[in-house]
Amino acid sequence: MKTLNLDLGLRSYPIHIGAGILQNSELLTAHIKGSRVAVVTNDTIAPLYLDAVLRLLNKHNPLSIILPDGEKYKNLEYLNHIFSDLLGARCDRQTTLIALGGGVIGDMTGFAAACYMRGVPFIQIPTTLLAQVDSSVGGKTGVNHPLGKNMIGAFYQPQCVLIDTNTLKTLPDRELSAGIAEVVKYGLIRDSDFFAWLETNMEGLLARDSSIVTEAIYQSCKHKAEVVAEDERETGARALLNLGHTFGHAIETGMGYGVWLHGEAVATGMVMAADLSRRMGFLSDNDCWRIETLIKKARLPVRAPKKLSGMQMRELMSVDKKATAGKINLVLLEALGKAVVTSKFSDADLSATLEAMRE
Amino acid sequence: MKTLNLDLGLRSYPIHIGAGILQNSELLTAHIKGSRVAVVTNDTIAPLYLDAVLRLLNKHNPLSIILPDGEKYKNLEYLNHIFSDLLGARCDRQTTLIALGGGVIGDMTGFAAACYMRGVPFIQIPTTLLAQVDSSVGGKTGVNHPLGKNMIGAFYQPQCVLIDTNTLKTLPDRELSAGIAEVVKYGLIRDSDFFAWLETNMEGLLARDSSIVTEAIYQSCKHKAEVVAEDERETGARALLNLGHTFGHAIETGMGYGVWLHGEAVATGMVMAADLSRRMGFLSDNDCWRIETLIKKARLPVRAPKKLSGMQMRELMSVDKKATAGKINLVLLEALGKAVVTSKFSDADLSATLEAMRE
Repeated sequence: MKTLNLDLGLRSYPIHIGAGILQNSELLTAHIKGSRVAVVTNDTIAPLYLDAVLRLLNKHNPLSIILPDGEKYKNLEYLNHIFSDLLGARCDRQTTLIALGGGVIGDMTGFAAACYMRGVPFIQIPTTLLAQVDSSVGGKTGVNHPLGKNMIGAFYQPQCVLIDTNTLKTLPDRELSAGIAEVVKYGLIRDSDFFAWLETNMEGLLARDSSIVTEAIYQSCKHKAEVVAEDERETGARALLNLGHTFGHAIETGMGYGVWLHGEAVATGMVMAADLSRRMGFLSDNDCWRIETLIKKARLPVRAPKKLSGMQMRELMSVDKKATAGKINLVLLEALGKAVVTSKFSDADLSATLEAMRE
Repeated sequence: MKTLNLDLGLRSYPIHIGAGILQNSELLTAHIKGSRVAVVTNDTIAPLYLDAVLRLLNKHNPLSIILPDGEKYKNLEYLNHIFSDLLGARCDRQTTLIALGGGVIGDMTGFAAACYMRGVPFIQIPTTLLAQVDSSVGGKTGVNHPLGKNMIGAFYQPQCVLIDTNTLKTLPDRELSAGIAEVVKYGLIRDSDFFAWLETNMEGLLARDSSIVTEAIYQSCKHKAEVVAEDERETGARALLNLGHTFGHAIETGMGYGVWLHGEAVATGMVMAADLSRRMGFLSDNDCWRIETLIKKARLPVRAPKKLSGMQMRELMSVDKKATAGKINLVLLEALGKAVVTSKFSDADLSATLEAMRE
């Protein structure tokens, strides 16, 4: 087992990574203070892992809350189902919520914990690669709104993050690839060596080779923890983690939540950001080729859907949370391994990218 | 104009109290950083004060969001209307929300600010006595759930609180009395001299005598600010501010939100808490008589509704946020001017109070 610490003063917490962590009750119960716990999961994950987690919690009178699986349920209505279940079971302010599932479950459970009785503790047990390398670490929680993704939420940190790499054995191929998109992102924005390592090890990652998977998760969480420790509330450096996300959110919103997986949309978004960076003279043709090649190798899409016009994409991008006073801010690449947030791109370059990078 | 400061380190803020503050644009605009503002109010307050506030904000491209008036709209559905309006108008992360109205508007706007794009600044302009002396100060925000009042929310502090005592001129008598309930509370829990001052000045307060009203608001905010500075997140002393609230919330929930005003329910709740305190030997018969007399003089109810049985009241009280592991915690009075949180009351005494203090 490997352990990282996310350093946030009083709100610091450990991230444990390893195979079989869900058999170790100590790791989980060490972070539960009150007498009650509620495990929030979905109907795909529940048959696979819920019993194992409940067994670890048998002294804590665990309540189970099972939501339907899917991004389209990540909204205020289903958040309210969590509140109804907690209130119906008389869960008090000392109740610890446990998020068992992917990014949707983690974001919703974290936000429910932030709001339930104005804040109860919570623990992340991410079961998808995407959640393990990105959304479970750093305290961004929330739900979607029909007019924009993740528009309603809170910065709210968990008590700990438990990443059992064994859970990846049951992950569908498509979701594994979606998670790899965020792994590639860390290489692109902060670590060209890690990018090169991924070029060498992509087959092993796709084959779920245990040591390669663990290393990829560890490196990703290390990068994420460093960035979040520096800028918890995204007033600066943390925004760099959104490489590809403004393009990606536009695709997700435009297609309807859940049609494209988040990681798929981010993958295409990163290719689009690279293309715009090339048009601005930051990246070489060869850099863009390496990026697109690695993302393709990860079995991820590299072009926006034909169904969305460049105009529609631009309109959807303007409601992004990073937009200020109507101006779109984008994360672009100054070099492979170095990102920047900027609004200093020309309209013509953005239009060219939006047109050229469609199916 | 009088100014208090709520001391919370980086989250400190001023509370300005005086007649005609809403004519002073400087006080308001000094706390607006971004280019956009959105004023959230209701359809009772909008015709009275919205134009005046929008005039102060003409450089800030103000958006108005007008909700229907009433506690029954203090829920996730109407919170979502605020989000829809903000997103529809492309309000970004630098938008300042302004709560113009009573406690419902303040709680909802504050919670919307806490959650919109994971947090934007907000300003409180309370227009009811209840909001001016209690809910606008201290950062408790939230909405109700069918299973309990204020169950969903956040601790989220405003940038400032602007209390224009002129707004009380249009306040209905019933709501003035409801606000006085919270004023009386500060005397009961922390300041027997203030309680005695209220016994002398209740007629003046009900007659809306300007200097008496200002003094009552100032003393109330001073007490509130001291308690919140000591215990922002209610892990200790702040809970004392909930005198009468566990009984009161049970009445409000049991009758359906909005049938009893919050202040009316708290008034009866304080009489019930005093009665239980007397049964435990804390208060004298004379103390209870003074409390009930002052609350009656403020034209407030002193008995729970006949419609709710003692059993129903107890059931509703057990979902209170202060309950831990199923045990009801209550704020009781050790003396007039001194409160305590305790679960050490007998079931028999609680039952006796619940039966005796019904209509």
